[in-house]
Order: sequence, then structure tokens, then C-alpha cells
Amino acid sequence: MPPSPAIAHVKALTFDVFGTVVDWRSSIIREGRALGARKGLDRDWVAFADDWRGLYQPQLEKVRSGQLGWTKLDDLHRGSLNALLKKHDIRGLSEAEIDDFNRAWHRLDPWPDVVAGLTQLKRKYPLVTLSNGNVSLMMHLARYAGLPWDAILGAEPTRHYKPQPECYRLTAEYLSLPPEQCMLVAAHNSDLVAASKVGYRTAFVPRPTEYGPGQRENLKAEHEFDVVARDFQDLAQQMGC
Amino acid sequence: MPPSPAIAHVKALTFDVFGTVVDWRSSIIREGRALGARKGLDRDWVAFADDWRGLYQPQLEKVRSGQLGWTKLDDLHRGSLNALLKKHDIRGLSEAEIDDFNRAWHRLDPWPDVVAGLTQLKRKYPLVTLSNGNVSLMMHLARYAGLPWDAILGAEPTRHYKPQPECYRLTAEYLSLPPEQCMLVAAHNSDLVAASKVGYRTAFVPRPTEYGPGQRENLKAEHEFDVVARDFQDLAQQMGC
Repeated sequence: MPPSPAIAHVKALTFDVFGTVVDWRSSIIREGRALGARKGLDRDWVAFADDWRGLYQPQLEKVRSGQLGWTKLDDLHRGSLNALLKKHDIRGLSEAEIDDFNRAWHRLDPWPDVVAGLTQLKRKYPLVTLSNGNVSLMMHLARYAGLPWDAILGAEPTRHYKPQPECYRLTAEYLSLPPEQCMLVAAHNSDLVAASKVGYRTAFVPRPTEYGPGQRENLKAEHEFDVVARDFQDLAQQMGC
Repeated sequence: MPPSPAIAHVKALTFDVFGTVVDWRSSIIREGRALGARKGLDRDWVAFADDWRGLYQPQLEKVRSGQLGWTKLDDLHRGSLNALLKKHDIRGLSEAEIDDFNRAWHRLDPWPDVVAGLTQLKRKYPLVTLSNGNVSLMMHLARYAGLPWDAILGAEPTRHYKPQPECYRLTAEYLSLPPEQCMLVAAHNSDLVAASKVGYRTAFVPRPTEYGPGQRENLKAEHEFDVVARDFQDLAQQMGC
């Protein structure tokens, strides 16, 4: 099926990663349980994972607002982790063990359709990360999960966290493309709306269990996006791959 | 063979690209000849290729010195190309044809040992470009030549052209590694010396015909580098891959 006229000029696909490409929640729960088993810590790792992600936007906001200078996501994650270890009464971990647990974010499993879908899409399009994750995090995650990115861009190389417009605009500039020739693929309505304001084409792929069985947001596309796909393999088909 | 103690702590391999990974000279000559055949232009494409590369360092120096603000290598190449079309009396090309010829730098062939060597090295190490080429150039070149990079770093994301120390230092910072855990692989003594001053480990791989049959520089390692390898497959073996 040839792509529709609205997307015929797309020259590169950019991807949100946490939630869209990888299932961070199940993976962080798994990492927490493994740590708990090793250290004899019987804790609520589901609540721990949700708490950790819950501190994500407030931490990013400190950087966006200028309250905090540029800080990599790895370091923001570590700040949150220090606070949560106290909150959940987790004691007796060495610095090396805490560092390793912080790198759980480098070991997130992709959704089942992702690797096959990206492999199809890569034949026709360069595939580029447009994530708030820092470069080394994204690189390790790609090696862990087998994600065939052509380039790692997004927050760190642009020094702006999404949804700041500079993050999308400067990513297109790195690609030497006008924003209209870039498409963002994401499972979050707000991310796509921010990208489209800069001129990006948009593709929504729902991940209705990203936040667990009780998820109430982002269950479906709430705006007129250029593509709405069931999963990455459906996206590949709709993009004419 | 296990790696020597000096390189046991290396966590990422960074690569010079033009000359070290790809044979730019033969490829540009080939592209020139193809253009000449299409347009009926009988010109000395060997001299043209050497002239084009001859303007490379003077162009970079304009940016390094601050005479010119940050400018992507694609745009510097285009400035040189405009001058050389006049010098070699090449007329009658459309803007689109000149743009396409400028993108000859996105279609450079790898040396014969490169893809097999990188594939071996990638099993153990993240592979990262540390080139003066801009991100989109490097990305297109990787897709053309089948280069399995894990990340594209170097000049554009650091806004400094090699051999400025910031280019090496900030590339290590993107990798979240101290420079001592990064190795630069290059066919040019001066590039390796500049990297080692910042703390990088170094690997020299000779490319004795990069500048054609009469090449007189960089025929061998002229300093005490951590590794001297015949080619990328030998490098993989020496790195314990």
C-alpha cells in the first residue's frame, strides 16, 4: 500500500522511546524484584516502579524551568532513586549496587512488535530516537533490546527536554531536514501535539498497558494525526514498507 | 588473545571515518567520472577529488578560528564545490545536480576489511563515530556502506572540529565515560596524538593508499599508540573480539 500524500515527503522517522518502544514499567518491576530477591528485600516493586516514573516529569521540569542546569536523565533518575530508597526503606545497598539499579533504565524490554517493525521500517527510512533519555542510556538500551537506530538524537544533543519545541526543531536540524519531512512516532498524544506544532508529521501507536492494567490516558489518538497504527508492524505497512 | 592491560578498561570504540573507515578518494573519483559521463564532461576527476579534499582543512580552519560561525561539513563541502566547479570549468549543472554531487560524500565505499571488522568489534564494544562529518552525512554514509554504528557523535554534537580537544572530550561526556575508557581508531597520527592528549586510548590502522599511490604521510604509526593493527579485522583480534 503506498503511503498517503500527507506522509509521502517524510524522509526520517523519529521515535519516542519510553513507553512507545520499550515497556519500562514491567522491566523496572522485574529489575526491582530481582534486586529484592538478591538482597532479601520484600518490597512493593510495582509501587516502586510507579513512584520512580512518577518523579520523571517533576525532575525534567526542574531543568526545563532553569531551576537546575543541564542534567542527563541518568543523573535525574539517580536523584529520584536516592529519595525512593529512603521512602521504601531500602537499606544496605552499596554505591555500586545503587548505580547498577539506576541502570535498570538501560535494560528495558521492547514491546513484542517493535524489533520486527523497526527492521521493516529501516529498509525505507532512517530511524532516529527523539527521547528525553541521554545518549549513553539510549545507546545501551539499543544494544540490550536490539533496536536498529541509525542515529541517537533528542534531548541531550539539543539540550532541551521534550515537549520544549527546540528539542524537535534542533533534532530536525541535525537531520538536515525541514520538520515537515520528519515524522514522530509516539504513544503519547501530548508529545505528538508538541511535535506537530513545530511542523512534524505524526504517527500514534497506542500502548494501553504502559502504565499497567488501570491506564486511563493515551488509550487512543485524541487528535488528527497523520497515521494511527495498531503497532509497529502495522505502522510499517501503512508507511509502505 | 585477551587485550593488554593498557586497553582492558576501554568501554567504547570511537572512529575517525574519512580515510580510516571509508576510501573517500576512489569514491569521489568514481562519482566525478559518473557525473562526467552523464553530462559529457571530460575532466581530470583525480585532480578534482584531490582539490576537493585539499580545501577540507582550510575550510575547517575558518570554523575553528572563529572566522566562520558553526557550519556543517556538508555546507563547507558545498562552498568548496562551488569554487572548484569554476576552477575546473564545469558548467551547465542544475542546482539539484550540484546538490547531488555534493552528496557524493554520503556515498563513500568502506575499505574491504571494515564491515567484517566492525561486526566483530560490535559484539564486545559500542562503536561510535568521532568524525568531522555532520550527523546526517554520517547517517547516510552508514546506511550506504553498511556501517553498524551504535551512535553518531564527533564534531556536530560537540560543535568543535577535530583536532580541537573539546571534540574528543565532549564525545566522551556524551558516552558518560572518562576519556581513558574511550579508544580512538584512526589512520592519522595527528588525530590520535590529539585524542591521547585528552586521555583517550589510541589505535592506529594504516591506510597507505588513502591519498593515492604517491602517499607519503601516515604510512605507519609514528608514536607509541596502545594498539597498531594491520586492518579492522586484526584490530578486532587484538581487542579480544
